[in-house]
Amino acid sequence: MKKIKIALLGCGTVGGATYKILQMNAEQIAQKTGVILEISKILVRDKERPYAVPESLLTTNYQEILDTRDIEIVVECLGGIEPASSFMLQALKAGKHVVTANKAAVAANYETLVSTSAQYHVMLRFEASVAGGIPVLDALQAPLNSNDIEEVSGIVNGTTNYILTQMIEQGQAYEEALKMAQEKGFAEADPTADVEGIDAANKLSILIALAFGEIVPIEKIATIGISKLSKEDIAFASHLGYKIKLLASAQKSKTSLQASVQPTLVPKDHMLAAVANEFNALFIHGNAVGDLLFYGKGAGGLPTASAVAGDIIEIANAIDKNAAFDSYVNKISASHLTYLGEGSNAYYLRLSVSNRPGVLAAIATTFSQHGISIESVTQEVNGDAAKMMFILNEVAREKLELALLALEKLPEVIKVACILRVMN
Amino acid sequence: MKKIKIALLGCGTVGGATYKILQMNAEQIAQKTGVILEISKILVRDKERPYAVPESLLTTNYQEILDTRDIEIVVECLGGIEPASSFMLQALKAGKHVVTANKAAVAANYETLVSTSAQYHVMLRFEASVAGGIPVLDALQAPLNSNDIEEVSGIVNGTTNYILTQMIEQGQAYEEALKMAQEKGFAEADPTADVEGIDAANKLSILIALAFGEIVPIEKIATIGISKLSKEDIAFASHLGYKIKLLASAQKSKTSLQASVQPTLVPKDHMLAAVANEFNALFIHGNAVGDLLFYGKGAGGLPTASAVAGDIIEIANAIDKNAAFDSYVNKISASHLTYLGEGSNAYYLRLSVSNRPGVLAAIATTFSQHGISIESVTQEVNGDAAKMMFILNEVAREKLELALLALEKLPEVIKVACILRVMN
Ligand SMILES: NC(=O)c1ccc[n+]([C@@H]2O[C@H](COP(=O)([O-])OP(=O)(O)OC[C@H]3O[C@@H](n4cnc5c(N)ncnc54)[C@H](OP(=O)(O)O)[C@@H]3O)[C@@H](O)[C@H]2O)c1
Ligand SMILES: NC(=O)c1ccc[n+]([C@@H]2O[C@H](COP(=O)([O-])OP(=O)(O)OC[C@H]3O[C@@H](n4cnc5c(N)ncnc54)[C@H](OP(=O)(O)O)[C@@H]3O)[C@@H](O)[C@H]2O)c1
Repeated sequence: MKKIKIALLGCGTVGGATYKILQMNAEQIAQKTGVILEISKILVRDKERPYAVPESLLTTNYQEILDTRDIEIVVECLGGIEPASSFMLQALKAGKHVVTANKAAVAANYETLVSTSAQYHVMLRFEASVAGGIPVLDALQAPLNSNDIEEVSGIVNGTTNYILTQMIEQGQAYEEALKMAQEKGFAEADPTADVEGIDAANKLSILIALAFGEIVPIEKIATIGISKLSKEDIAFASHLGYKIKLLASAQKSKTSLQASVQPTLVPKDHMLAAVANEFNALFIHGNAVGDLLFYGKGAGGLPTASAVAGDIIEIANAIDKNAAFDSYVNKISASHLTYLGEGSNAYYLRLSVSNRPGVLAAIATTFSQHGISIESVTQEVNGDAAKMMFILNEVAREKLELALLALEKLPEVIKVACILRVMN
Repeated sequence: MKKIKIALLGCGTVGGATYKILQMNAEQIAQKTGVILEISKILVRDKERPYAVPESLLTTNYQEILDTRDIEIVVECLGGIEPASSFMLQALKAGKHVVTANKAAVAANYETLVSTSAQYHVMLRFEASVAGGIPVLDALQAPLNSNDIEEVSGIVNGTTNYILTQMIEQGQAYEEALKMAQEKGFAEADPTADVEGIDAANKLSILIALAFGEIVPIEKIATIGISKLSKEDIAFASHLGYKIKLLASAQKSKTSLQASVQPTLVPKDHMLAAVANEFNALFIHGNAVGDLLFYGKGAGGLPTASAVAGDIIEIANAIDKNAAFDSYVNKISASHLTYLGEGSNAYYLRLSVSNRPGVLAAIATTFSQHGISIESVTQEVNGDAAKMMFILNEVAREKLELALLALEKLPEVIKVACILRVMN
């Protein structure tokens, strides 16, 4: 049986779990695939720290890995854009195949990484970088390549989904739920990248490249996190039949792309609403297959390493079959995009208003003057003040912003307290 | 760009839709994959019938397709075990790659088809044969090959799921719901293969081969359809917090395999309970990735043909890369199974009993004597008679059957009216 040698870069949560899976399931892997996978070196920062791997494998010198000719696959589990990206490029240029779980590095350097892998005829795979263990990037390649993909939306960040689940189910405030997530290991000490939607935007950028063949850097994706969400809007949304989820969404038509990461009202009977805690789910719409949903664990050592190890196996199979290597990713075409933005959506709006006769009439008139129609309105009166919650029918974000400016000038309107997208 | 020629066998629902997708999405496919796919012959029974394809492609002579050297891929969309299986074997032996949507033929001749494709170094793919457009067989290969798969369960038959959805949501009786499904094109004139669970058993047999590497012919899978289900048990199950779904399930441990197709009580908050109408969903548990769920359309021309076309693209990519061909399916190993059966499950039981004091005590004693514990009991009294609905804790089916024999001998018990599995 052919033996294939592998180097791991990093031996933290994902690196350590990758080592574990290749040990634990070695027999099945060999039996199913006909290849033996051997981790022969592991890059760490400090050899003296305790790791659950044989000490003899550890090295602190990356050059040693690059120089070892019989290492055919380099698995990057360091995290961060640098030095991870440079390390990957060096490996590709040294003729080694690369697997990574690093969405930040892949999103930041997508074109360079993909084109380098193509130029050096080696494979680059990053299944674990989006939605952890759910094999969705693989599915977006060949199995769905017969489709024109029209939409990719989903819950791709486990930390924020855990926090939102606590807020929805326990009625907790954001800070309280964040603290609990940190205690349970679902959020990091510095949660910024997760709670501000940056991690989700990295993943969406990768999904857009694979599903639509367009390169959209995260700076161009409208991104709103969950740190400003109030208990109150979670409760009002629930009352109106919705759960608020942090959705990463992209819809494509011939020449336009709508993309955003933002808290979104999802109807309670939609399957995405049932995705709780640290779970992730991806919804895909193809013009042939219709609607698909993929659900599973988006984070955690073993689930993420399951995808890393799957990529290793795909590459090992290709080596074993002497396949002419090609990056597994679809070709990126010259972009024909004429529009990139949030597009048209239904919206949830909460206004603070003075409680006097004619206030609804004034607001409704303003909406109507801006061509916006109201789907529903509810209110909660508290003495002189009142809260009004609207669900507005589909409207372009730009148009809505103009209407909000006009609303804020009405004497009856105290302030626009909350605007959230409603899932189409 | 490389052009790859393809023959379709059959131009019905799936064959016709495959032709349509390759036309409709030709540009994207060429752009994403770098190959041009051309359907150059289509086998039909009668050239005079109207088809939505150019007449010049039609042939009634299969030998002509086998003899055309530049046809590299044969796509079987005829249905039925024969002549489909023989046609596929002939194509493989002629050095042509084969794609099929035919679960009956694949389940019946799995080993022969797979070993012939390996022997002749050509590829055999059958993604569409299980759960239509959902790319689950592909996922069960490389992306999840790093896992020891422990369970595969799901709703894999759209016809029965449509009928059950009508029964659950509209309170219809089985016959009424079947008639409606037939009118809407979700059930065939002769619905036997679907409603008796045979179609689902074919799919489960294929899933077992891919997930566990074991060959289990459908005759060895305990199979119960939905045609005997009463409105009454649907309603009682709902009252107890469950929806009844036709589940195809297989669980594997080191040496034993539990496999069955049967109507099963699924807790209402489980994601499988949310799968309605003609949709399918597959639940997979791997020892690294944990729980995964794949959801989408399990039938219909375009969704099914999406998977067929996906397989064509995978093969075309392999041809394009000069990959040493191998059947894409995992190697089947010598079986170590010592047990194959329904295994241990929780059960729902409905008894008709006489309404007299002591009846529950007598029944409970009998269960206890057989080592079976009761999770809950509810009853509905109607004069002298009563119905008792039990949920029993996990017990081996064989043990349950012994207890039922004993129950039937009790003077208080009129009959065992219904036994259904409850999802673990
Ligand atoms: N954890 C998850 O659930 C998950 C899920 C999906 C994707 N990912 C991705 O997987 C990657 C790894 O995440 P992780 O959770 O495994 O992180 P982690 O537990 O922090 O592990 C990273 C390891 O790499 C080491 N490292 C960093 N830079 C190094 C360098 N220059 N030289 C040598 N060692 C270095 C770190 O050592 P120090 O501690 O000394 O810095 C640490 O031991 C990230 O890209 C992450 O986004 C993670
Ligand atoms: N339809 C679905 O939603 C679906 C989903 C998943 C999988 N599948 C599978 O896909 C396959 C095809 O199903 P389908 O729905 O497309 O069936 P279909 O609509 O009945 O089409 C089959 C076609 O093949 C023709 N045919 C059969 N035997 C032939 C022969 N010996 N020579 C020439 N032509 C022959 C039939 O012609 P006649 O009418 O003259 O017999 C018919 O036109 C089946 O294996 C099915 O299980 C179907």
